[in-house]
Amino acid sequence: MNKYKYSKEGTLSHTLGGFPTIELLEKRPELVEKVFIHEDFYEKDRVFSLCKDKNISCEINTRLVNRLARKDNTLLVAIFKKFFGEIDARADHIVLNEVSDMGNLGTIIRSMNGFDFRDIILVGNTCDIFNPKTVRASMGSIFDMRIRHFESIEDYLQAFPDRKLYLFMLSNDLNDSIYKVKKDKGAFSLVFGNEGAGLPKDYDRFGQRVFIPQSDRVDSFNLPIACSIAMYEFRREDE
Amino acid sequence: MNKYKYSKEGTLSHTLGGFPTIELLEKRPELVEKVFIHEDFYEKDRVFSLCKDKNISCEINTRLVNRLARKDNTLLVAIFKKFFGEIDARADHIVLNEVSDMGNLGTIIRSMNGFDFRDIILVGNTCDIFNPKTVRASMGSIFDMRIRHFESIEDYLQAFPDRKLYLFMLSNDLNDSIYKVKKDKGAFSLVFGNEGAGLPKDYDRFGQRVFIPQSDRVDSFNLPIACSIAMYEFRREDE
Repeated sequence: MNKYKYSKEGTLSHTLGGFPTIELLEKRPELVEKVFIHEDFYEKDRVFSLCKDKNISCEINTRLVNRLARKDNTLLVAIFKKFFGEIDARADHIVLNEVSDMGNLGTIIRSMNGFDFRDIILVGNTCDIFNPKTVRASMGSIFDMRIRHFESIEDYLQAFPDRKLYLFMLSNDLNDSIYKVKKDKGAFSLVFGNEGAGLPKDYDRFGQRVFIPQSDRVDSFNLPIACSIAMYEFRREDE
Repeated sequence: MNKYKYSKEGTLSHTLGGFPTIELLEKRPELVEKVFIHEDFYEKDRVFSLCKDKNISCEINTRLVNRLARKDNTLLVAIFKKFFGEIDARADHIVLNEVSDMGNLGTIIRSMNGFDFRDIILVGNTCDIFNPKTVRASMGSIFDMRIRHFESIEDYLQAFPDRKLYLFMLSNDLNDSIYKVKKDKGAFSLVFGNEGAGLPKDYDRFGQRVFIPQSDRVDSFNLPIACSIAMYEFRREDE
């Protein structure tokens, strides 16, 4: 039983609840190790049939579902292998430097999927992208992502040298307004820092600074909101 | 003691934690009934001095702080009177129809303050804007708002007839893309629906439909994100 308990160091994670589990089974069946159903789940037949189609092992195990769900009233769980996909060098990337909140990370991934960004780079000491909390907050969108971790932004730039970086800063300068930024024709990366501290100031040597103008009555925008606004703006010309 | 326990029907609410409490004392001291400090709070002198300046009653009461904070490790609490301010008829409004999540509502208020929207209209059966959870999620921005509730959107339109409404819908139509919408010169209202259901379809008789284009891999954007993108876009010409 205990082998499915989540740990950051392990190779397995799990979905909690019907929606992300179905997303996983549909999108990445090859990652699924096993599906567990609570006896009270009302669509058992649908899940059994889906698992049979995809050749996935599936059983009713109320006790295990309750253990993994803890206080949640989750009725469906899928155990899956953590994945670190190949990043697409020709695609636009979202780069998150030392992001610390799993709910924020999941919400960012959901927005990425909505704006057709599918490559996510984590830099340095970030929170756990495969923790069930992150997976849940992503509403299953994590299974549409390619994911890679780098120790430093320099390591990332060495692996992906030919792209423009836009660095989203917490400090205001009229010259850096996102409303006026010119978007590069080639592949680019939108880079964001930690929720509290933002990006280190000297990161501006890696690319162009950008700032989302805001009233002086707030400290900053919530991180998933800043990321989503950036993605929205950088998808403008595609419309 | 019990008279400060939060209830939706009561006339009082409270802040939890240093940051929103200081914001309240600075911005709306006239609303504050009393301040309670936990014995472990490290800046007691600053709070006592601020309260003295503003003529606000303040005392150390660890037991009461613990009770109001429940499991939180909050060390500072201010009791304040709920306020329903006069909405500014010449300003742009954010209208939220049957929004249900207090964390979302607080996050929306924080973004509103960032984008200089200070009038919030709640319509129908919405979650509690003065619940301490909403206040906390707003990071103190709720104290910069004017707030009013209407039973229906028709009631709102009767009170504020001369304005254009932009209705943010969950269903896609290329003609309605926010990237292409023309913004009215006069005061306008951005209208959003419930997290799950969105706005009722027949609301389009009240104004112009708008949609944030998104990939078909996601159901919808998270509500505070959709609201924030809308506010960002509608503040474009001011930059």
